[in-house]
Amino acid sequence: MGKQNRSLHLNLFLASLGHHEAAWRHPASDVNGIYDFRYLERLAQKAEQAKLDSLFLADRYSTSQKAVKYGAVGGLEPLTLLSALAVVTKHIGLIATVSTSFNEPYNIARRFASLDHLSGGRAGWNIITSGTDSEAQNFNLDQIPAHHLRYERAKEFVEVALKLWDSWEEDALIKDKASGIYANNSKVHEPNHRGKHFSVRGPLNLSRSPQGRPLLVQAGSSADGKDFAAEYAEAIFTAQQTIEDARAFYADVKARIAQLGRIPEHVKILPGICPIIGESEAEAKEKEAQLHELTHPAYSLLQLSNRIGFDLSVYPLDGRLPELPATEQIAGHQSRTQLIRDLADREKLTIRELLLRLAGGRGHLTIAGTAKQVADELEQWFVSGAADGFNIMPQLTYGGLDDFLDQVVPELQRRGLFRTEYTGTKLRDHYDLPYPSNQYAASLEHPST
Amino acid sequence: MGKQNRSLHLNLFLASLGHHEAAWRHPASDVNGIYDFRYLERLAQKAEQAKLDSLFLADRYSTSQKAVKYGAVGGLEPLTLLSALAVVTKHIGLIATVSTSFNEPYNIARRFASLDHLSGGRAGWNIITSGTDSEAQNFNLDQIPAHHLRYERAKEFVEVALKLWDSWEEDALIKDKASGIYANNSKVHEPNHRGKHFSVRGPLNLSRSPQGRPLLVQAGSSADGKDFAAEYAEAIFTAQQTIEDARAFYADVKARIAQLGRIPEHVKILPGICPIIGESEAEAKEKEAQLHELTHPAYSLLQLSNRIGFDLSVYPLDGRLPELPATEQIAGHQSRTQLIRDLADREKLTIRELLLRLAGGRGHLTIAGTAKQVADELEQWFVSGAADGFNIMPQLTYGGLDDFLDQVVPELQRRGLFRTEYTGTKLRDHYDLPYPSNQYAASLEHPST
Ligand SMILES: Cc1cc2nc3c(=O)[nH]c(=O)nc-3n(C[C@H](O)[C@H](O)[C@H](O)COP(=O)(O)O)c2cc1C
Ligand SMILES: Cc1cc2nc3c(=O)[nH]c(=O)nc-3n(C[C@H](O)[C@H](O)[C@H](O)COP(=O)(O)O)c2cc1C
Repeated sequence: MGKQNRSLHLNLFLASLGHHEAAWRHPASDVNGIYDFRYLERLAQKAEQAKLDSLFLADRYSTSQKAVKYGAVGGLEPLTLLSALAVVTKHIGLIATVSTSFNEPYNIARRFASLDHLSGGRAGWNIITSGTDSEAQNFNLDQIPAHHLRYERAKEFVEVALKLWDSWEEDALIKDKASGIYANNSKVHEPNHRGKHFSVRGPLNLSRSPQGRPLLVQAGSSADGKDFAAEYAEAIFTAQQTIEDARAFYADVKARIAQLGRIPEHVKILPGICPIIGESEAEAKEKEAQLHELTHPAYSLLQLSNRIGFDLSVYPLDGRLPELPATEQIAGHQSRTQLIRDLADREKLTIRELLLRLAGGRGHLTIAGTAKQVADELEQWFVSGAADGFNIMPQLTYGGLDDFLDQVVPELQRRGLFRTEYTGTKLRDHYDLPYPSNQYAASLEHPST
Repeated sequence: MGKQNRSLHLNLFLASLGHHEAAWRHPASDVNGIYDFRYLERLAQKAEQAKLDSLFLADRYSTSQKAVKYGAVGGLEPLTLLSALAVVTKHIGLIATVSTSFNEPYNIARRFASLDHLSGGRAGWNIITSGTDSEAQNFNLDQIPAHHLRYERAKEFVEVALKLWDSWEEDALIKDKASGIYANNSKVHEPNHRGKHFSVRGPLNLSRSPQGRPLLVQAGSSADGKDFAAEYAEAIFTAQQTIEDARAFYADVKARIAQLGRIPEHVKILPGICPIIGESEAEAKEKEAQLHELTHPAYSLLQLSNRIGFDLSVYPLDGRLPELPATEQIAGHQSRTQLIRDLADREKLTIRELLLRLAGGRGHLTIAGTAKQVADELEQWFVSGAADGFNIMPQLTYGGLDDFLDQVVPELQRRGLFRTEYTGTKLRDHYDLPYPSNQYAASLEHPST
């Protein structure tokens, strides 16, 4: 495939109207798209026609009276929507965000195994720990639990889920009508997990799914998050503002992976990128300026305050960002908060300017340029050790997603950087990842190589 | 519609291969149907062509190494499968079982609101409290919590869900691009629920769904269960072995509903019925005998022991059922246990005979006969105060579902007892139920009549 042996991976981070805060107000957008399955189906099918590896839905477990005034918040719960999209697509991977802080592992292991069965092996799980008090307040708590405790629970949660997914060996089903034996029950295991956070007996109540388990994706870039990713992730979403930061992150995480005895190529690092594409760079910038015009500073400020867990409403918009707590002291989203602080410092931004820098992608890299410029930027990151692929986050979906799929993807294909056909049917095939072995299978049958 | 003003309601209780324990072993069955979406899709579409009110999926949160040997257990998690079926059907209601004992109300309110949006107003929730230790053991517990505590939690769970579904008024969305106002936030409410089992701030993170909330269905017939149903249910599933028992149950529950000031006609009572249909009665009985032949007593006994929470494996198969604990002392499924005991007493059954009486429908009424005989039985129950409709549970799906839909349904239509066309698009339309009002809406706008 082209001059490189590697080819890059593309995930569509699906936001119904776009990642820009004001996308819903753009003349091209139909705000009813948020709940319109036929529209969402077309987006997914379009991404599949472009041969993208996967599409991905984020999630948050709260909103507020204040936020709904200016923000087009809402939409279908991710696994619900992906279950529906599974039946109208054939190849594209389906990655849902689920938090380990507000769910039970038995339920979640089951839902992902169900989606994997339903989609013929295309399920992925973006594992998050959530990070805001407003979410905790929907689950019997006053505040979000401490950062290290959330990751501790997340680890045990994933360990339990792995045991449950492995609780049926691949060849456990016999289905012999004549003898009436449905399963070889020496190949169905009861994990009997007993830990600090969970006691779960098992087995899971459905058989091993086509991929064995969903693709495990991780999206927190704090020290705890990187350790977690190095241990469990097969793909990592991350927000990076500069190629230098991205390279440092890439090297750091790949080293952590190697240190744990895992193969670094078996974990794909996918920074986010929020494109706005125009015929000329000027046209693209003009589109971006038009979206920026449509933001409400009050709403942007609320979003930012919520994201960093720090109320900014009392600070003057035209002043600088106040001193924020040290990263390790942040209970919520550590890496994102740090990225935002670094960005404001590096570019010496006022709060008002910062809000606009974040409006297009909440801290992910934004690019307004021609299709060629966007392709150049992706290629540069890809070939210089900053990325194995990208999390594509169009600032505007209506029009904007087509621009990316119709213009940038073919350009990457011409350069030999991206597939022109799917070569497998499962999500792990698309990401060139091995099929996981089963922790309960006799070692003779499944030698761990 | 015919001689009656009322017309009856039909729900398909979908079991992929059939409700008979041995359905998977029948020559007509393809055991791969359990995970085959295209097959399940055909079943749903076929039920919709027959104009059924709804289809329904049960749920259990465990299985065991022992059970999987002989039992074709497994299948997709209900809300996952119904989300997928929502996009390949247009009219039929989609009712999922979810337990209040092993879930959080915020998550569940959201998932049902999502399914209701996705399906254009066809979601229903069969509210259960679960009843076995093996399920509790997948959720950090050693034993199932006490019966009255489960129903106490269930009530608060539903109260929280109702608040969340009402947290967005119907006309809260403004979606005004020009001013940038997405929602009128005086019409978005934060319930701030604080109770014994749950603290949930809200609002829900998606807007009010087409039906306002899912149809609320209930399926436990103990005293606690009936009280719960009288307060919240819009439809009630129940297992009844005789028309006399069914009439008594019907009268009892309708009286409880009236006593709470609700309108009895606004709660539909749907006993289960498990048909096997033949050209002649003899042929139907022969089909049933053939299925009975294929049962494994060891498996049937395990299922029964699990259902009644009492280990029967040490009792002789050809002896009578031992003395079971008094109904009020049963932690698990009270009404079903009582039904089973009553059945064994009334018919003086040995354990072996009892197992066969339960094999076709786990305690629901089984009928083996001609289409006309089945239609007669349904009509008799319907016109004599035993039922508002039925929960149809074919013992065998391959072939058997078609028999019911192609033969019994047209017979009911000819008699003027069942619709020949859908007259509405939402699940509540099919069941002739009113649209719920919103507890937070100003009373002037929505007078409670
Ligand atoms: C692409 C991407 C998607 C993310 N999606 C979510 C999400 O859906 N919900 C969420 O709570 N956090 C999400 N996060 C994670 C948070 O932004 C944050 O990184 C995480 O909660 C904790 O991060 P930490 O490990 O840096 O403290 C996402 C992060 C990235 C990079
Ligand atoms: C048609 C029907 C379907 C039911 N589905 C389930 C189910 O899916 N899962 C479950 O745990 N209980 C289910 N139940 C309920 C139990 O059988 C039992 O009635 C309930 O757990 C508690 O009942 P109780 O109130 O009689 O103790 C169902 C009952 C009926 C009548």
